Amino acid sequence: MSSSPKITALRRAMAAHGIDAYLISGSDPHRSEYVASRWASRAWLSGFTGSAGTLIVTADWAGLWTDSRYFIQAEQELAGSGIELMKLRVPHTPEYLDWLQAKLQTGQTLGYAGNCRSLNGAENLQRKLAPLGIEITPTQDLLDEIWTDRPAPPTEKIQQHPPQFADRPTLEKIKDFRSWMATKELDYFLVTALDEIAWLLNVRGSDIKYNPLVVSFLLIPESGPLEWFVGKERVPPPLLQEVELQLHSYRATAGRLLELASQGMQIGVDPTTTNLAIYQAAGGASVQKLASPIPAWKAIKNEKATAHIRNAMARDGVTLLRLRRWLESGAAVGKTEYEVVQQLQHYRSQLDNYQGDSFGAIVGYQGNGAIVHYDPPATGSATIGEEGLLLVDSGGQYLDGTTDITRTFSLGAPQTEERINFTLVLKGMIDLSMAHFPKGTSGVQLEILARQHLWKAGLNYGHGTGHGVGYFLNVHEGPASISPNPRSAATQRPLEAGMIFSNEPGYYKEGEYGIRCENLVQVYENEKGFLQFRSLTVFPFEKRLLVPSLLTDQQKEWLILYHGQVYQSLAPLLEDPEELAWLTAACSINEVLSQH
Amino acid sequence: MSSSPKITALRRAMAAHGIDAYLISGSDPHRSEYVASRWASRAWLSGFTGSAGTLIVTADWAGLWTDSRYFIQAEQELAGSGIELMKLRVPHTPEYLDWLQAKLQTGQTLGYAGNCRSLNGAENLQRKLAPLGIEITPTQDLLDEIWTDRPAPPTEKIQQHPPQFADRPTLEKIKDFRSWMATKELDYFLVTALDEIAWLLNVRGSDIKYNPLVVSFLLIPESGPLEWFVGKERVPPPLLQEVELQLHSYRATAGRLLELASQGMQIGVDPTTTNLAIYQAAGGASVQKLASPIPAWKAIKNEKATAHIRNAMARDGVTLLRLRRWLESGAAVGKTEYEVVQQLQHYRSQLDNYQGDSFGAIVGYQGNGAIVHYDPPATGSATIGEEGLLLVDSGGQYLDGTTDITRTFSLGAPQTEERINFTLVLKGMIDLSMAHFPKGTSGVQLEILARQHLWKAGLNYGHGTGHGVGYFLNVHEGPASISPNPRSAATQRPLEAGMIFSNEPGYYKEGEYGIRCENLVQVYENEKGFLQFRSLTVFPFEKRLLVPSLLTDQQKEWLILYHGQVYQSLAPLLEDPEELAWLTAACSINEVLSQH
Repeated sequence: MSSSPKITALRRAMAAHGIDAYLISGSDPHRSEYVASRWASRAWLSGFTGSAGTLIVTADWAGLWTDSRYFIQAEQELAGSGIELMKLRVPHTPEYLDWLQAKLQTGQTLGYAGNCRSLNGAENLQRKLAPLGIEITPTQDLLDEIWTDRPAPPTEKIQQHPPQFADRPTLEKIKDFRSWMATKELDYFLVTALDEIAWLLNVRGSDIKYNPLVVSFLLIPESGPLEWFVGKERVPPPLLQEVELQLHSYRATAGRLLELASQGMQIGVDPTTTNLAIYQAAGGASVQKLASPIPAWKAIKNEKATAHIRNAMARDGVTLLRLRRWLESGAAVGKTEYEVVQQLQHYRSQLDNYQGDSFGAIVGYQGNGAIVHYDPPATGSATIGEEGLLLVDSGGQYLDGTTDITRTFSLGAPQTEERINFTLVLKGMIDLSMAHFPKGTSGVQLEILARQHLWKAGLNYGHGTGHGVGYFLNVHEGPASISPNPRSAATQRPLEAGMIFSNEPGYYKEGEYGIRCENLVQVYENEKGFLQFRSLTVFPFEKRLLVPSLLTDQQKEWLILYHGQVYQSLAPLLEDPEELAWLTAACSINEVLSQH
Repeated sequence: MSSSPKITALRRAMAAHGIDAYLISGSDPHRSEYVASRWASRAWLSGFTGSAGTLIVTADWAGLWTDSRYFIQAEQELAGSGIELMKLRVPHTPEYLDWLQAKLQTGQTLGYAGNCRSLNGAENLQRKLAPLGIEITPTQDLLDEIWTDRPAPPTEKIQQHPPQFADRPTLEKIKDFRSWMATKELDYFLVTALDEIAWLLNVRGSDIKYNPLVVSFLLIPESGPLEWFVGKERVPPPLLQEVELQLHSYRATAGRLLELASQGMQIGVDPTTTNLAIYQAAGGASVQKLASPIPAWKAIKNEKATAHIRNAMARDGVTLLRLRRWLESGAAVGKTEYEVVQQLQHYRSQLDNYQGDSFGAIVGYQGNGAIVHYDPPATGSATIGEEGLLLVDSGGQYLDGTTDITRTFSLGAPQTEERINFTLVLKGMIDLSMAHFPKGTSGVQLEILARQHLWKAGLNYGHGTGHGVGYFLNVHEGPASISPNPRSAATQRPLEAGMIFSNEPGYYKEGEYGIRCENLVQVYENEKGFLQFRSLTVFPFEKRLLVPSLLTDQQKEWLILYHGQVYQSLAPLLEDPEELAWLTAACSINEVLSQH
């Protein structure tokens, strides 16, 4: 198979460095899921634009491992690249390691960019491959040699998360962090994950599309000024006035760590988010590897944040209402999926506190709805007709919250099969929403509630059911998740009161249609000391897609209460009587549910 | 607190050997759950008779870790022993390791019997404690020095599993095993788990109460005669005629392994069931540590075994029917729980192929029903009255199957609360029975189906929901389970067609009553390629404990079909018209279910 010029250039660089196989995980120096353009190396090299994948290039072969959300997309995007699609059996697992174990010979060399792989990831490579006599050589990023117009690290504007919206004052967070550090007897801790830095400092940026982050490292000493490696010029004087702060350039991080390490300072890092090069600069084996406490703190949204998030959810519901009415008016017929994305963005941007989208909106008409992470291209996306299912998964970044909602709309009269499968998906979403569970229960235990009805029909979906969601932060956030992989640490992690998750089962019929129902839900403790979910997302479900006879009495009761909540939340925001009338009709669900 | 003479004697032996803390896991040299009297060291030393627990003795403290099934029982049995009850937060986890880490000082010595701890268990101790400077000294079993009348290893009679009942011929199993060995390039594999040996050789014994096992080791060479370390005199000539077999004494195992290791033979062992002393005899670090394939093979019951098991289940149902009628007649009033156990044993023993009980029957009246693994004592067990719940959990070993059934009987008129909670437990049992799931699904994912209704009422139970069950073998069998601990390898393991599990949710109100509903279920593949359970246990549920309005239509439908199946299975075995009339009435459930 012929190869692209980029792959050919990489092979030349590999040969010059004596590397037999080169591994590209597509992350940045912070282990970010979404990366700034400088680190979009997987996409640059392969053409595959999905958010998850691992690329391996050898002298005579190249392959990309990704999960079932992306199989259809990857097949299209990799066509003609000479890169083979390797389908992951279990999402988010390093199955490429098995391939490396099987294919590399003793004495051969595996290379990767040492600044774009986490310490844990580097150690895992070592553990799996070194015993087979494979040499592992972390290098400078080889792409630097062949990517001539590679973008510089980002320098977008930084803003404060305004105090009226910030969940807690920065100084309080820093105090808590230092109390934690004291228990570990650390001189310094280096915060490397970008959303942890943003949360701790109550700052937000736009370095990375959809993620309001500032590309930087933050070094916290046990006392004295915090050292922020971000570029002095990027931090306007009014920002962070109350915090004692030293500013350094982004590129100075490794040098400063080398200096501290040579002074014998005890530095702590989180091995899941700290890259190998930084770890080595901080002293390598003498560094303390510790799980940062921030992900667990950040995941629990306090009352102040929750109150704001509810406001953001209501505005987001109004956005969807306007989109749904626009679709209903027939205005979208003849327009492309891409134009629907733009229309949606337009509606969202009209409302308060909008800062951008929280991810690339997925608008999938008919067969495109079955491409789980479909991103309609500016040219060539499908044209909306008068019939068929339209899956719309989108979200906003607001000063007062991050949203993520999926609704499946029926244009024209739906098919019976579409209605049945929609109802099975929704039953799962409802059953998970209604769960009660004791403290200590983890996502892998709960997940079947969302799948069970599809399974009874012999159907399934190839993605997890729930991810954590940040507060004006990343739309995908740890440390816990609701997924079916019993070996994932995130889904083994107990859910805690205050955490916010998506609840998004789906069903996808390749080439025909996609169905997904997604609400964000927050964990709370009930009066019996058990945990439950409360729904945060407020938008009606498509009545004509329901098959009421498939719903249990409890599911019907949930739907009635939920639509009441939607009405209560959205009605006060609507001034246009036509919009209010539409809402009233959409939320009047009792009559439909009593049909058989 | 004063200590028992046995603990005092152990402390003297510990001092003589320079041991600061002595660890007793209560297993035997084969990592058996239930042990022959020789290895009942935990019970001998502490008085605690439960099946799971870890004892630690230091110079001035002694404690026993066990799980919530045994909290009430252990409190009673340990009273006055000077041994502190340490309640496990998560069942079957080594929380005592945290205690050892916290309490032992650098330079102190931990001892344990090297022949009664698995290699994995030994390595885990090393990994957790050696870095703290604690010395770990596997010793001879110190109890040998103080337990003057310690029983010898068992020498009970050995029988063949008759060919008409054995699932497959021994020679076939040995051939499969040797094919597996060939892929691992082994000269020998030492089978150490007693149920694996019994399954492979199609032999059964009675060395261990309730478990039809033969205490022995089996060494399988890549070709030539199998070497069975069991005692020549125990194997009568007609047994295993078709198998080429060398017989050795049980005590000769280590010597033979030392001999082979010195000849440079490559020996494989399973580190989860092989004890440290045997591992060292087999060559220590040069031994290949491999998971034995037998647990996975043995767990999948083939069609022949399944057909036999169905017959055994039907006879077991007749046993329960006779017990229930006896209770109904009022004959049990004034008798003790222990006498009920004897009555049950009597009924079971009247039927074909009975070989003994599969575990000590649990007959718990009123508050004793809340003691999850209650074992009514011969003297002092409670007297049955005219009212109250009676929990009966029992099982038989038959040539054609192993059974395990729990029913909760209502003597007199039940309380409303008892009926509601019984119905919540049964709803869970039914929902798990009705599950459909794709291949690859594990027990931890399914388990919530059995708990969800209790959780909604703020209730729970402190044990797992399902264990594997053998075929005329151990009533607790690996490798998979249905439990809520996401970190357990057994419950992470995918369920496979042919496996048999218990399905036994419960609810326990301390001091008042216990409720448990238990059927055995077998996994099968449906026409859509999904997996489902079929019920094997056949006995009606107590109609007067049902609250029909709490049941969904699907649950009612399941109950109707199940009771039809019970009738079909049991009726052909009943000759007494009164028994048949009772069965007919007990299985006529439609009328009750239509009440509100």
